[in-house]
Amino acid sequence: MIYFDNAATTFPKPLSVSQMLTKASMQYGGNPGRGGHSFSVLAGEQIYRTREAAASFFHTVPERVIFTNNCTTALNIAIKGLIKENGHIVISDLEHNAVYRPVHKLSQEGIAEYTIAKTYDDDDQKTVRSFSDAIREDTCLVVCTHASNVSGHVLPVSDIGALCRRRKIPFVIDAAQSAGVVPIDFSRTGACAVCVPGHKGLYGPAGTGMLLLYDDRLLQTMIEGGTGSVSSEAEMPDFYPDRLEAGTLNTSGVLALAKGIRFVRKNTPARLFSHEESLCRFVREHFSRMPHVFVCPQGKNHVPIISFSVLSKHSEQTAAALNRMGFALRGGLHCAPLAHTHYGTMENGLVRFAPSAFNTLDECRWLVNAVYQYQKGK
Amino acid sequence: MIYFDNAATTFPKPLSVSQMLTKASMQYGGNPGRGGHSFSVLAGEQIYRTREAAASFFHTVPERVIFTNNCTTALNIAIKGLIKENGHIVISDLEHNAVYRPVHKLSQEGIAEYTIAKTYDDDDQKTVRSFSDAIREDTCLVVCTHASNVSGHVLPVSDIGALCRRRKIPFVIDAAQSAGVVPIDFSRTGACAVCVPGHKGLYGPAGTGMLLLYDDRLLQTMIEGGTGSVSSEAEMPDFYPDRLEAGTLNTSGVLALAKGIRFVRKNTPARLFSHEESLCRFVREHFSRMPHVFVCPQGKNHVPIISFSVLSKHSEQTAAALNRMGFALRGGLHCAPLAHTHYGTMENGLVRFAPSAFNTLDECRWLVNAVYQYQKGK
Repeated sequence: MIYFDNAATTFPKPLSVSQMLTKASMQYGGNPGRGGHSFSVLAGEQIYRTREAAASFFHTVPERVIFTNNCTTALNIAIKGLIKENGHIVISDLEHNAVYRPVHKLSQEGIAEYTIAKTYDDDDQKTVRSFSDAIREDTCLVVCTHASNVSGHVLPVSDIGALCRRRKIPFVIDAAQSAGVVPIDFSRTGACAVCVPGHKGLYGPAGTGMLLLYDDRLLQTMIEGGTGSVSSEAEMPDFYPDRLEAGTLNTSGVLALAKGIRFVRKNTPARLFSHEESLCRFVREHFSRMPHVFVCPQGKNHVPIISFSVLSKHSEQTAAALNRMGFALRGGLHCAPLAHTHYGTMENGLVRFAPSAFNTLDECRWLVNAVYQYQKGK
Repeated sequence: MIYFDNAATTFPKPLSVSQMLTKASMQYGGNPGRGGHSFSVLAGEQIYRTREAAASFFHTVPERVIFTNNCTTALNIAIKGLIKENGHIVISDLEHNAVYRPVHKLSQEGIAEYTIAKTYDDDDQKTVRSFSDAIREDTCLVVCTHASNVSGHVLPVSDIGALCRRRKIPFVIDAAQSAGVVPIDFSRTGACAVCVPGHKGLYGPAGTGMLLLYDDRLLQTMIEGGTGSVSSEAEMPDFYPDRLEAGTLNTSGVLALAKGIRFVRKNTPARLFSHEESLCRFVREHFSRMPHVFVCPQGKNHVPIISFSVLSKHSEQTAAALNRMGFALRGGLHCAPLAHTHYGTMENGLVRFAPSAFNTLDECRWLVNAVYQYQKGK
């Protein structure tokens, strides 16, 4: 069975990542930041080192690295922490439900309205203008995915960030598909918060994510609870990371994530991108020659993802057939109805090919052959 | 170094728990509920088995087991999911900051007022009357800790639950210190939601917790995002567990938690309680004979926790001294200022002794001897 669903979660993980899960549970079992005894201190030190590694990788400071259980929670914390009552939010038309659903709920509750800015696959300036046009006097937040999890299309976040900076509007980036893959310095994008999963391009374990902050504004809290700090106060601390990290941290997950970041750092995002993109190029070229295969457009700037469909088949059906042939690819809507509306693929969805560092050209050859056989037989 | 801080997190974990973390990462690496391919399905099946195991252990149905990253998040989801605007909340005076801080924030935002009901260490009926007196016409939620994380005192949750049921008020139990330790059937307490950490009395890994639901009322969501279900909708699904589980689950953590639950099930909460309580009895008896040691009262019903202080020393100082002597105990306020106010120990805090299944009588002897030497020398 060959795994090509790395946009959902990378698999396998580097051995160091998987092994650290058990190791951390056995060696660093104290509750970090809870108590001054050696077990707690030792765990706290290890957590802090991961904070340092993440901060260095993402060009921020350790205190502004907030550990969460996934990118979705990070996005919810950022959105709900930055929103102003009766404000207005702008999002792109490629957002995942991790952005679309919380923003939609805020609008349903009458807390904030939102506008969906249209994006253009091959014209970044038109996309930026679209954001510019969507921004209103009362816009208090712009949230934008860095790369579509459907097409892989990379949006011009630096230009959108510059626009937001000029208009003094907080800008949040959903880097679910780009973190660890796209060589970018997020501190230069104008974003005040970047949300990343630990378990995708950073090769950490499931159950990890991060909210990376790039300035010192104080977000409203979404989750309150014990922090092991200023415990006598009924309010959450006014300093990071404590303010946004209530409750016991996932020590094993966080320490394993450090190993994932180290793996990415060693291989470099640029080289990982290059390897995965070469596999995508191979697959794209072959798919484009198959008469019954539709390949989703993704523009010049994209992450290594190819979404496609076969004839008029529903994508789930094609994915199921490929699964029977030994390939794990995800069909359906990928929790991104906006993007499928953008690409006109709501009805049947798409099958997504997303390679990782561990996939090989041979594996792609076998997939191309399987898809060829499948579409020919239809 | 002997670890007695099991009320913060149990350590060590059963070997099966620690080992499952790495095993799950290597064997069940698909994203559960995301895609129909074998990797995703396999992970989903394993997650569902844990749901079944938890449901069976906690007397609910698998769909009403919501996996979270810790008990704090579970409590926040329950509280914010049940609260009504302009409503009134009742909590006990032994609540952890995981309850106190979110409730306090709701009051600060003008969403809900709250009343703190006084508890009585040795008179359950007086405690229940106190809750009854605190309930108003507009009370929309009662939240109560099952056992204080400071004194170990167990509150009469079944009686409080019966009261809430009569008054038709949703009742939430914080079982952070009792889950896995107190043999109780929560489905008979009248609670509509019970929040538990995975990493304490259930011996699962840090990074796990659960919100257990006991009826079919639909909570408002606190976190929205992709669920892998009804993806074309902008709203969260109206069914459990999807409604409250946005984003990728912590597969390793959840599967390791299943091993923890199996460990507790095999040893039975009754036997685990009995073992730990026998250690507490030993420690309590010896501490009570030491003239310079104050033992925090805990009432007849309690979980195996003993909090104490030495002379007029600050608890952090005593905990640090014990740490140097080879014992890991937590001093300070344990994120529970309300409880320390209740016990009159806000100024110096308390040192907490909390044994687990793995502690022995010999270890307690050594601790008693160390405390004896320490308090004698002061």
